[in-house]
Amino acid sequence: MPPRSPLAPQRAAQLPPLAGVRLAAGACGVRYQGRSDVCLMAFAPGTAIAGVLTRSLCPSAPVQWCRRALRGGRVRAVLVNSGNANAFTGRLGEASVRRCAAAAAAALGCRREEVFLASTGVIGEPLPDERITAKLAELSAGLAEDAWAEAAAAIMTTDTFPKLATRTARIGRAEVRINGIAKGSGMIAPDMATMLAFVATDARIPAPVLRKLLREGADRSFNCTTVDGDTSTSDTLLLAATGSGPSHPRIAGAGDPQLGDFRAKLDDLLIDLACQVVRDGEGASKLITIDVTGAASDAAARRIGLAIANSPLVKTAVAGADANWGRIVMAVGKAGERAERDRLRIAIGGVPVAARGQRVPDYDERPVAAHMKGSEILLAVDVGVGKGRARVWSCDLTHGYIDINADYRS
Amino acid sequence: MPPRSPLAPQRAAQLPPLAGVRLAAGACGVRYQGRSDVCLMAFAPGTAIAGVLTRSLCPSAPVQWCRRALRGGRVRAVLVNSGNANAFTGRLGEASVRRCAAAAAAALGCRREEVFLASTGVIGEPLPDERITAKLAELSAGLAEDAWAEAAAAIMTTDTFPKLATRTARIGRAEVRINGIAKGSGMIAPDMATMLAFVATDARIPAPVLRKLLREGADRSFNCTTVDGDTSTSDTLLLAATGSGPSHPRIAGAGDPQLGDFRAKLDDLLIDLACQVVRDGEGASKLITIDVTGAASDAAARRIGLAIANSPLVKTAVAGADANWGRIVMAVGKAGERAERDRLRIAIGGVPVAARGQRVPDYDERPVAAHMKGSEILLAVDVGVGKGRARVWSCDLTHGYIDINADYRS
Repeated sequence: MPPRSPLAPQRAAQLPPLAGVRLAAGACGVRYQGRSDVCLMAFAPGTAIAGVLTRSLCPSAPVQWCRRALRGGRVRAVLVNSGNANAFTGRLGEASVRRCAAAAAAALGCRREEVFLASTGVIGEPLPDERITAKLAELSAGLAEDAWAEAAAAIMTTDTFPKLATRTARIGRAEVRINGIAKGSGMIAPDMATMLAFVATDARIPAPVLRKLLREGADRSFNCTTVDGDTSTSDTLLLAATGSGPSHPRIAGAGDPQLGDFRAKLDDLLIDLACQVVRDGEGASKLITIDVTGAASDAAARRIGLAIANSPLVKTAVAGADANWGRIVMAVGKAGERAERDRLRIAIGGVPVAARGQRVPDYDERPVAAHMKGSEILLAVDVGVGKGRARVWSCDLTHGYIDINADYRS
Repeated sequence: MPPRSPLAPQRAAQLPPLAGVRLAAGACGVRYQGRSDVCLMAFAPGTAIAGVLTRSLCPSAPVQWCRRALRGGRVRAVLVNSGNANAFTGRLGEASVRRCAAAAAAALGCRREEVFLASTGVIGEPLPDERITAKLAELSAGLAEDAWAEAAAAIMTTDTFPKLATRTARIGRAEVRINGIAKGSGMIAPDMATMLAFVATDARIPAPVLRKLLREGADRSFNCTTVDGDTSTSDTLLLAATGSGPSHPRIAGAGDPQLGDFRAKLDDLLIDLACQVVRDGEGASKLITIDVTGAASDAAARRIGLAIANSPLVKTAVAGADANWGRIVMAVGKAGERAERDRLRIAIGGVPVAARGQRVPDYDERPVAAHMKGSEILLAVDVGVGKGRARVWSCDLTHGYIDINADYRS
């Protein structure tokens, strides 16, 4: 096991109970021995759900299941296993998914269409689902409101720390809660490091509104992060609203002004979880935050940011504490979005290093060099053509990444 | 200096003289000391030219110059320096380009618009062009027909071996010649490893025909290779036709059936040079050839091939001799092109490992493991949706890449 990431938070967030959600974790021996590898989350009747799933055209069997189940907009259970992704497993995989959903539905007394599934781990190996279904009665009996930390631990694969976050938000005069857990080490690494995140709130928010809030929040958080630019077969982000918390005014739609604080806190929590994934990026020694401004649109800014964030040359330069802004120019140029060489401005750690098509004459390299030696690197790029902006997160590319990935399965 | 790539050819190709082309190399001290760093190529009057330039939206000053000069379709001189890319150098860079072109035109007695320029090296540093222009009379006096090897050496940056290739082709009953040199280590690495290639033939082919031949050839060669997926500010591929060789029937257009052999040999030479660049990829220990078939179109096949070729997870798996086909599934899924999970077939070293949406049951892992230990890796992917095909080349991602790039400028 690689050591705990040097970028891990000092201590994990302590998640309070959230009305309408109970959790349990157990050791089913799907692949790992001597640790928990399955987590069951149970939700109060009437809980609404929204989800964002991988765009991969070779999605896993659980992703295909979730895509159908999301149409109903209701959830009673989420069943997650680590160690095996149940991806590229053909009809065997589809049958596994059906058996898992049926077993969870029987254990909780709900319909199969209200059960959501996620799997993360090795691709192409049949899932030994009987090891999971055999434990479902036991898991169901052990469901508890205070098991968020256990759930976060059970879904880890190559993660070096569990990822948890909590927020409170006001809707009207009611104070509602948002809890979330995630896993991922490498934004994506299809063997053992798919990105999964499960978020719940006790607010009462209808599924269509949840969908819009989640899609927009995901675009500003998980969709703005990268470790290696590889897209998993299994990425899954779910948001459930139990409606079991303090009563608050009815939410009319996604544009309801009463959602202002909730939306801000949800975004903040999603960014928190997404950045925890980047901080646990395989081999990461530095967190890179990239602010892009002056792009033709927000979407263009995000694409430029991700071109910088995914560039192996930028990432290795950061690993080497090298303030190599020429590589940032290169990445902006290859992003395929409008940019004006003669208006482009680049700052590192707040110090302008390039502007108006050339190096800033005689800029003081000392504060820049000192900044590059730290563990949190700030790159700012103004493209000079419009008002689009985005913030994107990445990590450096180090020998650790090669060590972890060059002979993973042995 | 990193050691010579283990994938380098046993010996460099010996290029014969090519009628209508003379070359000279010299040490101008642009950045490097104690080695040649400038090359001048002179062409007979009436030589036609075509070019393919970087798609970067932050191109270097020489690329912008070439883009204009290519409209004329005529070339008398190509002047190339290594050590400094003259990229992101603003008006200073544009002035440098004008002075270099004027000096070369004066030395050779031609128009400035017939001079082509290319620079490769550090981004953002003003080009000390006076060191180049001061040597132009000397270089011009030393032009010789047999200096191809010297020219190939002068344009190297982080390259560990010079890249040369030659072919002969029949047009009618005449035997014409094609010579080419290239540099690049890492398809692209904007500090010191831009891809440059200069190809010449003694055939008489008009510029519009050359353009079509070159664009199609580049799409099957340089545009099918990757080391790190980063696009340089300076990539330049030029093809000149002197018409000074043995006389042959007039070429009517790019579809002229008399061009069949020439086109095949040109493509072959471009692939040879492109693969030499990949073999010199930074840190490369294995050459990866990826055959994609069954895609919706040839373009879709190339994009799928490049998604595999650029995946850090596939590249690290190859570095570790790990036949990790799950990562190939992942890369196909993320390419964004049509693919059918249940029809996808993957073979490694000729052995089918995955088919019909799952692992091939009980395939013999021994020949696959033995193949992965070699230095030339063959991956074949049939996407199962159409007739599009492409062949793409890449190299593995190793600790050497990190070593070279993590602290390049120090």
